[in-house]
Amino acid sequence: MTELNGFLAPKTPSGNSAIIPEMPWHYSGTLLTVEYLTDAANVRALLPPELDLADDEPGAVALIWADWQSCSSDFEELLDPDRSQYLETFVVVRCKFEGVTYSRCVAIWVTKDFAMARGWFQGYPKKLGSMHVTRVYNRGKATPRLEAGATFGASLAAYDHRLATAKVTLTGPVESNGFVNGHKMLHNRWVPSITPGAGNSLDQLITMGGVDLDLGQAWGGNAELILGDSQWDELGSILPVSKILGGYYREVGTTFNGGTLIADRSNPSV
Amino acid sequence: MTELNGFLAPKTPSGNSAIIPEMPWHYSGTLLTVEYLTDAANVRALLPPELDLADDEPGAVALIWADWQSCSSDFEELLDPDRSQYLETFVVVRCKFEGVTYSRCVAIWVTKDFAMARGWFQGYPKKLGSMHVTRVYNRGKATPRLEAGATFGASLAAYDHRLATAKVTLTGPVESNGFVNGHKMLHNRWVPSITPGAGNSLDQLITMGGVDLDLGQAWGGNAELILGDSQWDELGSILPVSKILGGYYREVGTTFNGGTLIADRSNPSV
Amino acid sequence: MTELNGFLAPKTPSGNSAIIPEMPWHYSGTLLTVEYLTDAANVRALLPPELDLADDEPGAVALIWADWQSCSSDFEELLDPDRSQYLETFVVVRCKFEGVTYSRCVAIWVTKDFAMARGWFQGYPKKLGSMHVTRVYNRGKATPRLEAGATFGASLAAYDHRLATAKVTLTGPVESNGFVNGHKMLHNRWVPSITPGAGNSLDQLITMGGVDLDLGQAWGGNAELILGDSQWDELGSILPVSKILGGYYREVGTTFNGGTLIADRSNPSV
Amino acid sequence: MTELNGFLAPKTPSGNSAIIPEMPWHYSGTLLTVEYLTDAANVRALLPPELDLADDEPGAVALIWADWQSCSSDFEELLDPDRSQYLETFVVVRCKFEGVTYSRCVAIWVTKDFAMARGWFQGYPKKLGSMHVTRVYNRGKATPRLEAGATFGASLAAYDHRLATAKVTLTGPVESNGFVNGHKMLHNRWVPSITPGAGNSLDQLITMGGVDLDLGQAWGGNAELILGDSQWDELGSILPVSKILGGYYREVGTTFNGGTLIADRSNPSV
Repeated sequence: MTELNGFLAPKTPSGNSAIIPEMPWHYSGTLLTVEYLTDAANVRALLPPELDLADDEPGAVALIWADWQSCSSDFEELLDPDRSQYLETFVVVRCKFEGVTYSRCVAIWVTKDFAMARGWFQGYPKKLGSMHVTRVYNRGKATPRLEAGATFGASLAAYDHRLATAKVTLTGPVESNGFVNGHKMLHNRWVPSITPGAGNSLDQLITMGGVDLDLGQAWGGNAELILGDSQWDELGSILPVSKILGGYYREVGTTFNGGTLIADRSNPSV
Repeated sequence: MTELNGFLAPKTPSGNSAIIPEMPWHYSGTLLTVEYLTDAANVRALLPPELDLADDEPGAVALIWADWQSCSSDFEELLDPDRSQYLETFVVVRCKFEGVTYSRCVAIWVTKDFAMARGWFQGYPKKLGSMHVTRVYNRGKATPRLEAGATFGASLAAYDHRLATAKVTLTGPVESNGFVNGHKMLHNRWVPSITPGAGNSLDQLITMGGVDLDLGQAWGGNAELILGDSQWDELGSILPVSKILGGYYREVGTTFNGGTLIADRSNPSV
Repeated sequence: MTELNGFLAPKTPSGNSAIIPEMPWHYSGTLLTVEYLTDAANVRALLPPELDLADDEPGAVALIWADWQSCSSDFEELLDPDRSQYLETFVVVRCKFEGVTYSRCVAIWVTKDFAMARGWFQGYPKKLGSMHVTRVYNRGKATPRLEAGATFGASLAAYDHRLATAKVTLTGPVESNGFVNGHKMLHNRWVPSITPGAGNSLDQLITMGGVDLDLGQAWGGNAELILGDSQWDELGSILPVSKILGGYYREVGTTFNGGTLIADRSNPSV
Repeated sequence: MTELNGFLAPKTPSGNSAIIPEMPWHYSGTLLTVEYLTDAANVRALLPPELDLADDEPGAVALIWADWQSCSSDFEELLDPDRSQYLETFVVVRCKFEGVTYSRCVAIWVTKDFAMARGWFQGYPKKLGSMHVTRVYNRGKATPRLEAGATFGASLAAYDHRLATAKVTLTGPVESNGFVNGHKMLHNRWVPSITPGAGNSLDQLITMGGVDLDLGQAWGGNAELILGDSQWDELGSILPVSKILGGYYREVGTTFNGGTLIADRSNPSV
């Protein structure tokens, strides 16, 4: 009998229809980051009870625009680039679990279905959105160069509601593009029972991170940020800005090749 | 301590950010269906080993374009209709498990993230696509009317590859809009372990179906269908048309309020 | 020598590549309208100097969401419905020229290129946008029915900025779906010289309207309207709401088969 | 009386609503080009009768994917990058008029309305499409580097029909990224009369080109190209590939600041 293949559904004999292929997944991209402080209670309110706030700057938040090209290990996606390119905007806080400090994504919007599927597998709470970020080109006048004074704009919308507008002006090279997204990620993977009210069939705490990091020079600078909300998306209301910490731009490459189960509370009998 | 709420991620104190709200979910829409025969071995190859082919017409396939408006029990989505309207094209076959005949969706493309998320919860193997289907308006010349001779067109594409093109010409009222999608659905819910190669953390066989069906008159007729493939999507290659059975149009209303776990092979320890 | 054909560019021997085909163009659709008053000076400021304000209610504005299916005289677009279906939101005021009262579109956003091209030919100042409007289905719970108490929502965005959000609650049948969009249109067609600062190569005042109107029952009711602006689109700032007049819903069919030149100030020598 | 401002419609007192701002317009981008030969008669069939074929290689065609960031002279679009970034795929041939050899765009698809409007003003026969081209990133594994062996993919679709798929593999630096798009452009600007059958109100032959060119190193290599058609777009049928000449990649910057009227046959009285 033919076997069904595919990392995720839909599964077919060839496995070619799967919304995402087998790991590893490679990424080349740019990150525009704005870090800011909110009241630590706002971060606390977004963490499951078993997690604690980070010890230092527990109210720190990173809002990051990533402009990615990604592919699997046969690189075929690069030749049909609609399947390879996407943008995402994600909100990262830090937390502590069993004495270890982690980063944690509490909201994220992406532009493609394969990116959504990867995120749901990884515990990133992905939704679709529309996002844009200024790019750096090497020629002509319609671009910043990677130099002091360079100005970047970025926007995020979902369901035609503007959720974030950012502006970053670089002042010079820095050691790192922020500290909030600098730890391994600690994520939940929740799948409710198909029976209403019966709890979660899958309920796992997992950790993950990239390997084979290939980092460009980080640039830092000043940032402005306007956050909004809609009926369907909370951002400005749940993580309001009390103080901007800074803005950053960095070219990055990374590879994802899985993570580790930390704790399980699944109830597969429902 | 504040509680995190939301049917699915992202979870927040209000629960308003969840990509989908609590059930029940209501649907109003139209279905354009083309039913056809393929070799039963093609259907067999898409079923997990524990499922059998249906006894009668085991090679029957339904390709369905649905043009939906949907909402949760507070109807708020209807007032921000970008959050309410979507299209989907889905491929249904039948199968048998423990003596019962079921319908089963083996491929489906939708236009919105909330529809994707509902599908992953329900075991529909949803991806994003671009699809269109002729609508029936009551006024003017740029529309078929619901009458003999009415002609409908439909298309499906994903990643800018055309996967299906259909044409249906109605001949008259019929008893039902096909037989392939007429049973309860039997779906798998698979979530792989975050650890590469460690199997599925969640692996369930579930059944589900709509309630409170509100069906319009079914219309039947003749159909033409051209199926294609791409690197990322298999349709024409895995379920080729050997004989068209017919085309159908029907207005439908339904409500989804959960399903039932049939079998579990999850391994939440990975 | 082969002849180039096509109503508009791109022109080819077959004429099939033209962004729009020869007239007539047929339309079937629905219109959701909100009429309101703004200060008449706001309307005056959007009219060319040779036009006057209408005598009665010169500050009246109609904001209309149209959900269209359209085609040319061979109806082929209906079979590839991506080429047939689109939405548009348009802003209509009235004006007077040589003693005749006209309607005039001062802003309009559409979802497809063929609709943009038709508009530029007709003097509608079309841009792309993202718009949604609640639909009426005949089955199920996720829809208003065409009856008193029915509630419709509508939205308009461009470049990920929300420009308009509307809500209309029907109270009963009425004679007409408003008065602002009830005259022949008076539009300018401007094409600047390819030489900077040299004026307009084409500068015409034309009038046009639909023929073969096929009107459904008009329904009227109450409306709410929130208007916004962005760097690229002015709506709330240039036509602010001073008083809502009413909301309307109507099914309509119409055909467009050209118009009439009223005045010409073109300078084709530049 | 308030004046109406705006380079194109919609015109308002501020001029801010215009679909495109005043020239000059700056561009920074990358070009992926495939040049090939078709039968010269195919090119001849796409030229108006008053133009001649080029003397050398009259059947040469360039198909070009451009990945642009663009802005006006105040650079504000760069800060709301949805208004600044777009892709376009265009088909260029050469022609001769009054002894001078020109380049001429015979088909072009873009992703944004402001790019469409610029094109219609410039005589580019622009339509909307969906296109993608592999990008060069400086970090990670999911990208080619600008070096021998680098492979790029590109695709073009319109109305969910795939019209072109290309693959370019670089072999080394070259002097130029092709010769077909290397002359000033010779374009027609046609606007039909609002009266059916009355001819063109605007019918101009204009020439234009970029200024302030800022060119990166051109890279050349081998190319593969598959062209298609749809009901709405002709490409493979009207300009079939008889021989691939080469593929190219180049970073470019340019500025557009108008052109020159060459000949006028407008009839503004219609």
